Amino acid sequence: MKYSSSLLNEAVEALSELPSIGKKSALRLTLHLLNDESNLALRIAQKIVDLKNNIKKCEVCYNYSDHKVCQICSDPSRNKNIICVVESIRDVMAIEDTDQFSGVYHVLGGIISPIEGIGPSELNIDGLIRRVEKDAPKELIMAVSPTIDGETTIFYITKMLKNLDVKVSTIARGVSFGGELEYADELTLGRSIHTRIPYSTDSNI
Amino acid sequence: MKYSSSLLNEAVEALSELPSIGKKSALRLTLHLLNDESNLALRIAQKIVDLKNNIKKCEVCYNYSDHKVCQICSDPSRNKNIICVVESIRDVMAIEDTDQFSGVYHVLGGIISPIEGIGPSELNIDGLIRRVEKDAPKELIMAVSPTIDGETTIFYITKMLKNLDVKVSTIARGVSFGGELEYADELTLGRSIHTRIPYSTDSNI
Ligand SMILES: [Zn+2]
Ligand SMILES: [Zn+2]
Repeated sequence: MKYSSSLLNEAVEALSELPSIGKKSALRLTLHLLNDESNLALRIAQKIVDLKNNIKKCEVCYNYSDHKVCQICSDPSRNKNIICVVESIRDVMAIEDTDQFSGVYHVLGGIISPIEGIGPSELNIDGLIRRVEKDAPKELIMAVSPTIDGETTIFYITKMLKNLDVKVSTIARGVSFGGELEYADELTLGRSIHTRIPYSTDSNI
Repeated sequence: MKYSSSLLNEAVEALSELPSIGKKSALRLTLHLLNDESNLALRIAQKIVDLKNNIKKCEVCYNYSDHKVCQICSDPSRNKNIICVVESIRDVMAIEDTDQFSGVYHVLGGIISPIEGIGPSELNIDGLIRRVEKDAPKELIMAVSPTIDGETTIFYITKMLKNLDVKVSTIARGVSFGGELEYADELTLGRSIHTRIPYSTDSNI
C-alpha cells in the first residue's frame, strides 16, 4: 500500500481512474475533497447521475440535448441554411467556443474507418441525407478531422448528396493535417471556418 | 449557457470546482463520466464519504490513519530512533514516495507563522516533546520548508528540546530556499534526507 491509510489509498485509486489524472493529481484531489465542506464529491456524482438519466440526443442534429430538439436547433437566430457536419459532440463544443459560427450542426457520431470496421451505417449519415432533402439547406460545411478517414467520410457523403442542390465545403486547413479537431486552438478553428473552401471530389480524392 | 444542455452545463460547473481543473478539463471529465459504465462518479463519491467518515489521525505521529496508530508507526521494520518532523501529511507522502527513509514521522500540522497568527500551541509540538521524552529517539530530522517560518519553527522546537538528549538535524538544502517541500522532485528530496546536516542554533539563527 502506498499511503498510511487504506481508506485514503482507495479514494486515490478511484480518482486515478479518471482520464489524464495521475497519482499525484489524484492525491491532491482526494485531500481537497476530504477537507471540502460543501460535499463537492457527492454533488459531482449527483450531477453525473442526473446527466446519465436525463440527457437526450437532439432528433435533428444528434447533439446532446435536454429536450427532443436541442437549444441550437430550436434557436431562431441560428442560420438553418448552413449545416456544419462534425464527427462528435465535442467538436460542436469546440466550434461553439470560437463564437465564429451561427449556423446549425449535424453530429455524425464518428467517421468512416475501414480499419476500425466503422461503416456509413454506423454513423448518422442517413439522417443527414434526409435532413438535406427535407430542409434544403444551402451549404454543408464538412468540419471533420483532416485525416484519410475524414476524407473518405466527406467523399462518401458528397456522393450520397450528388442529386441534391447543396454546396459542400470543407473547413480551411488551418488545422494541421492529421490533427484532431477538438485540440485545435479557438483562433485557428474559428478562422478555418471563415476561410472554408468549396469541396470537389476531383481535386481532393 | 455554454453548452447545448443545461444538465451538461451543471455537471461541468461542478467538476470545475475541483482545484486546477479548468473548463476544458471539466468538460472532458464530464463526457468521460457520462459514458463510463462502471459508475465511476458514484464510486469516487462513495470512497470520499467513507474517507470523511472514518479517517483518523494517528495518536503517535498525527498522520492520516485507519486505526488509532498508523501503519508506519505500527510497522516493526521502521526505525523508531529517527523521527522526521514535517509540516503536513502531504510531506509524509512526498518523503515516502522517495523510498529513502525508513524511520518514523511527526506531523506538526503547519509551521509557526507570526504573520498568519499561527503560534506553537496551534501545532502538534507539545505532542512531539512528550514523544521525545517518552521514547527517547536518537535523532529528529527537521524536514520543514526552508523558509523564515520554517527556520523559526526549527529554532523553537530545538529550544524546547534543549534538556533532552536528542540530535536535531535539518534536511540538506537541495530543496531551494523558499521552495515548498511537497513540490520537490523525488530525487532531490530523497537525497536531501541522506545528506542532512546537524542543526545548530548558533549558526542558523
Ligand atoms: Zn439539435
Ligand atoms: Zn503514526
